Formats: sequence, C-alpha cells, structure tokens
Amino acid sequence: MTTWLPTLITSTPQEGYDLAVKLSRVAIKMTQPDADIREKLRPEYAENFAALIGSSQIVATHFATVAAANGYWREIS
Amino acid sequence: MTTWLPTLITSTPQEGYDLAVKLSRVAIKMTQPDADIREKLRPEYAENFAALIGSSQIVATHFATVAAANGYWREIS
Amino acid sequence: MTTWLPTLITSTPQEGYDLAVKLSRVAIKMTQPDADIREKLRPEYAENFAALIGSSQIVATHFATVAAANGYWREIS
Amino acid sequence: MTTWLPTLITSTPQEGYDLAVKLSRVAIKMTQPDADIREKLRPEYAENFAALIGSSQIVATHFATVAAANGYWREIS
Amino acid sequence: MTTWLPTLITSTPQEGYDLAVKLSRVAIKMTQPDADIREKLRPEYAENFAALIGSSQIVATHFATVAAANGYWREIS
Amino acid sequence: MTTWLPTLITSTPQEGYDLAVKLSRVAIKMTQPDADIREKLRPEYAENFAALIGSSQIVATHFATVAAANGYWREIS
Repeated sequence: MTTWLPTLITSTPQEGYDLAVKLSRVAIKMTQPDADIREKLRPEYAENFAALIGSSQIVATHFATVAAANGYWREIS
Repeated sequence: MTTWLPTLITSTPQEGYDLAVKLSRVAIKMTQPDADIREKLRPEYAENFAALIGSSQIVATHFATVAAANGYWREIS
Repeated sequence: MTTWLPTLITSTPQEGYDLAVKLSRVAIKMTQPDADIREKLRPEYAENFAALIGSSQIVATHFATVAAANGYWREIS
Repeated sequence: MTTWLPTLITSTPQEGYDLAVKLSRVAIKMTQPDADIREKLRPEYAENFAALIGSSQIVATHFATVAAANGYWREIS
Repeated sequence: MTTWLPTLITSTPQEGYDLAVKLSRVAIKMTQPDADIREKLRPEYAENFAALIGSSQIVATHFATVAAANGYWREIS
Repeated sequence: MTTWLPTLITSTPQEGYDLAVKLSRVAIKMTQPDADIREKLRPEYAENFAALIGSSQIVATHFATVAAANGYWREIS
C-alpha cells in the first residue's frame, strides 16, 4: 500500500477534521477490500440514520486523536 | 468547502458544548451530503430514542475534545 | 438559550456526576426540542434496558471529562 | 440523595474496579428510579449477552477515569 | 472476592493486552454471576460477530487504560 | 502464545494504523479461537455495514492508544 498517512499534523482544525474522516474510511476499506461489495452496500448504509450515527462516532474518536496530536491548534487561535 | 471550524477555543463551557453539537452534525452531512435524503430520514430519527442516544454519545465524545482544548475553562471558574 | 453550563468545576465527585447526567440530558433536548415527543418516547425508553445502558454510557463519557476538569477532586480526598 | 461518591481515590486497582461498577449502576438508577420496573427488566437483561457487553463497556469507561484519578496505582506496584 | 487485580503494571505490551482481556471478562462475571447462565449464553454469543465486535471494543477500552498505566512500555522498546 | 506484540512504537503513523488494525483482530481471535467458525461468520460480517462500522470503531480506539504511545509521531512531521 502506498503512503496515505504521512503525518497527523494539520494546519487547521478543519483540516484535522477532514483527516479524521479519512482515518474512519480507511478502516472500512481494510475490513472490506472489495470495492464492488462496498458500493453495493453503500446506498442502504447512506440512507440509514443508525449507520450515519455509527460513522459519526468513529469520526469523533479519530478527531480526538488528531486534535491531541496538534495540541488542539491552540497557537493559531 | 468554506471555513466552518476556525478554532476549538471558546469563551465558555456552554459555547464549547454548542461546538461539540456542531462537530457531531458535520460528520452526518459529510456521510450523507444529500439534504433531501437527510430530511426524509430525520422524522423517524428524531422520534427514535435509540437514535437520540447515539447522537448524544457523539456529542459527549466531541465535548471531551473541546473541553481538553480549552483547558476545561478552569480560569473562568 | 439561558446559561445552563457556567463551569465544569464542582465541589465534590458526586456533584460532578450530577453534572455529567445533566450534560447527557441536554444533548437529547437539543436533538429533539419538542418536549411532547420526548415525553411520548420516554415510557418506552425508561423501561428498555438497552436504552438505559446507552444512557449510562453517555454519562460515563461526560463524567470522564468533568473528572479531568476537576483534577479528579484529589485535594479533597 | 445521601453521599454515595465521596472520592475517586481507592487503595488498590481492584477497589477501583469495584468503584467503576458502582458508577455504572448509579446511572441506571438515575434514569429509571423505579426499583420495581428495574427488577422486572433485570432477568431479561442479565441473560442477554448484548446487554452484558453494553454494561461491560460502561464499566470500562468508568475504570479508565478511576484509574487516571489514582495515578494508575503505580506507587503500590 | 479474592485479589484478582493487584496491579495494572505488566512487563510487556502483550501481557498488558492479556490483562485488558481479563478486565473485560470480569465485568461480565460481575453482571451475570451465575456460571450456568453464562455458559448457556456463550455459544450463541461466540458465533455472533456483532457480539465479538462488542467484546473487542471493551478490550480496546481497557487496553488504553493499561497502556497509559505502563507509560506505553516505551522504555523496553 | 508466541510474541505478537513486542512494542507499541512504530516508525510512522501509517504503521501505527496497521498496528491498531492488528490489535483489533487479536481480540476477535481470543474471543472466538475456532478459525472455522470465524471463517463461517466472516462473509456475513464483511458484507454487513453495521459490522464494518463496529470494527472501524475498535480500530479508532486502538489507534488513539498507539498514537499516544508514539507521541503522535510529531518529531517526524
């Protein structure tokens, strides 16, 4: 696999949030590597609020990690 | 996307809580970008206590991050 | 909205726990602002152990934040 | 309510674990204060592995807090 | 109950992981003390991936605590 | 069991992510040691988005631990 995660450091909180979303999606790809199956499952998933909530929880967990890594971007505030 | 998260720093714990709610909602929008589908799903979701509980858990996770970023607002207590 | 969260600092661990319960409930109110719908859902929810467990998890997450904010109340032990 | 949580400090990790279990149970009582309803729900709950797992997750979250409060009991190791 | 948790300190990360598994199992025993009922529930549970995932989440939470207690075993790396 | 976790220290964030995935999978093996049963369950699991989301949450929790252990790889950024 190519390098997809060179660093946890980002310039802004918003870029950190985008990285958290990316970290969430990679785990799904690593568990189900077949893109066709993932695509087949996506519609049902995207319209299901329970699944949306589960995804948001994962993003929240990764965002906590990325925010700590960046010292919460305090110096740019 | 425009800047929606310039900083994690807030003046008060209550503003920090509002930011945690905002962070929770953005993840849902990024997973399901179609506002019509989100709207269609919302009624069922808002009346479902299990979904309410799931949403509250995400807010709690983000609030932990925002509170740490702000040094728990100890100096204003 | 009036000020409902002026500080995370409490005198005792038990008051901190009460604050964690309050933080949990506010998220539910912000997701479902209609008190009548919340009331209609409550009976089912309060008798459902799965929902009780979900609520307790949110309290646990908020209590972790409040306890950290208060330095775990070590000086009063 | 009488004082049920005077401190997070315990002498040993095992006492800390017991405190985490207690913290988990209090949230359930505060959400469903009626002991008869809780009792009626308990059999179903205690025989349901999903509920057991949910409860264990709450204990784990509280144990993290209690362990941090006690400096992980490093000095007694 | 005899002493089952004298310390959170372990020699290696792997022993720390084993301790996290042990911490997860104790909570299940304390919620459902009847070994016969636990045994009756286990087959269904062990073959159910959702339950496996729930168990793994608890182990992950406890491992975070044990790893922090041990300073992440940095000095032996 | 042979040594499978000698250290939490990795050279890069991406290697840390891989370690988090490994930590997630070991818990599943320890709960259900029978490889045939795991294999039988896997198809259903891998095509089920709820299960994918649960797995991703565990990876996120372990990644938080591994990232903290490595000081968030700040020095290589």
